Amino acid sequence: MEQKTIGFVPTMGYLHEGHTRLMEESKKYADILIVSIFVNPLQFGPNEDFDRYPRDEQRDQAIAEKHEVDYLFIPTVKEMYSGKEIVTINVKDRTDVLCGKSRPNHFDGVATVLTKLFHLTQADFAFFGLKDAQQVAIVKGLIDDFNFSVKLIAVATVREDDGLAKSSRNIYLTKNERHEAAFLSKALLEGQKLMIDGEKNPDMIIEKVKKYIVEHTNGTIDYVDLLSFPTLSTVEVIDQPIIIAIAVQFKKARLIDNIIMNTDGTVPHEVV
Amino acid sequence: MEQKTIGFVPTMGYLHEGHTRLMEESKKYADILIVSIFVNPLQFGPNEDFDRYPRDEQRDQAIAEKHEVDYLFIPTVKEMYSGKEIVTINVKDRTDVLCGKSRPNHFDGVATVLTKLFHLTQADFAFFGLKDAQQVAIVKGLIDDFNFSVKLIAVATVREDDGLAKSSRNIYLTKNERHEAAFLSKALLEGQKLMIDGEKNPDMIIEKVKKYIVEHTNGTIDYVDLLSFPTLSTVEVIDQPIIIAIAVQFKKARLIDNIIMNTDGTVPHEVV
Repeated sequence: MEQKTIGFVPTMGYLHEGHTRLMEESKKYADILIVSIFVNPLQFGPNEDFDRYPRDEQRDQAIAEKHEVDYLFIPTVKEMYSGKEIVTINVKDRTDVLCGKSRPNHFDGVATVLTKLFHLTQADFAFFGLKDAQQVAIVKGLIDDFNFSVKLIAVATVREDDGLAKSSRNIYLTKNERHEAAFLSKALLEGQKLMIDGEKNPDMIIEKVKKYIVEHTNGTIDYVDLLSFPTLSTVEVIDQPIIIAIAVQFKKARLIDNIIMNTDGTVPHEVV
Repeated sequence: MEQKTIGFVPTMGYLHEGHTRLMEESKKYADILIVSIFVNPLQFGPNEDFDRYPRDEQRDQAIAEKHEVDYLFIPTVKEMYSGKEIVTINVKDRTDVLCGKSRPNHFDGVATVLTKLFHLTQADFAFFGLKDAQQVAIVKGLIDDFNFSVKLIAVATVREDDGLAKSSRNIYLTKNERHEAAFLSKALLEGQKLMIDGEKNPDMIIEKVKKYIVEHTNGTIDYVDLLSFPTLSTVEVIDQPIIIAIAVQFKKARLIDNIIMNTDGTVPHEVV
């Protein structure tokens, strides 16, 4: 009897196309698919919306069944945390940039719950969307540092036909904003063009991307950053794989997107 | 083909009877025996003796071979730590008592290296001697908190005929001290007698044990403590399993010993 392999998709529920894409990917790699639904209190800050985070277990179960999930793991907070823990995990790097900057300890909570879930599921492969590239970078560090046997599979962002990264938050866009939002991914492609043309100066690329966003949208730029990937450090000259990551605030929706590239502007087959 | 189980004995080398006893125990539980030898820099304080810690790889290999160890894992520091780690483990409880009191961050290093070694070995069972009961208590917390699938097996302290706990440090005792040292384990048995007689007041037991040590040895008491086990908290009344732990300084050797008991003074079959 050959041993079956286990693919694992950790989620906080309220499943959407981003999640189901990860489930489909898992089937290419592993025999068994485990999906967890757990709104992890440890990764919410005191002023964040843990209690108001959307939950719809019945709908999620129907989606999981439709996508032939083998095991749906929906533990309670009490089952995951006894409240008597004596050991904590601290992520001390790759956190203080991009969206992590405004979410102290968020990734400590992510690393802790994933450590538990990797052990509980005995996963051989774990699937994460590249939409949250910082999370991918940190999970990569967690797996490497602690020698987890799980293999991280980073899955390309799912996009609408016009390039807009799919997100539950897109429904909050006005009709005009929705039109403008398509230019975010196009701004990243402008950055890519410069890379392909041989530009090695991060500032030149950041300026170009910013300018493009300002010219094509009414959103407010939260950040446009170019960092090494997956180490997420500032680079003086582009001499290693990098990420261009953007966050733009529209009236009721803050959108993020990114592109990861080799030094010559090509997109790596495996980013981590 | 049935899957074989893996037993794991982590050590810092310089193997002695305490280690070989763990190896023998592993064979009762698991098909395959992995022993690691790694002097872990992370668990040494700045003023501790990492560089001077005794090493004898050839002798260790001979001992391992004699005891039919299947895999001897001797990684280098560089192989275990890239120096670019982004994730750290902090043990925030069970540390500030007993020997841990004088070794800040020691158990952070222990928890980190064990997390890595559990993953690298894929152990089903891990064996630890009860001589270092605080370590057992903390490893138990680590495994529980992070849901490791490894099962911790705590193995009773190996003793000389007169009851003295075996230790590499016993060779530093003078002839007279060696004679006196046997009274340490007898002091613990005095504590046990009180427990069997129904004593529930920790202070009464601690006093009795201290008095016995003072009367029978010329060593200096570092501590005699009675704590809940494995939570290692002070107890007002003995209403849960406890440990009596002692540390006594002789001229050139600091000896430790302990006994773990149920409320009625019996020794539990499985302490964790």
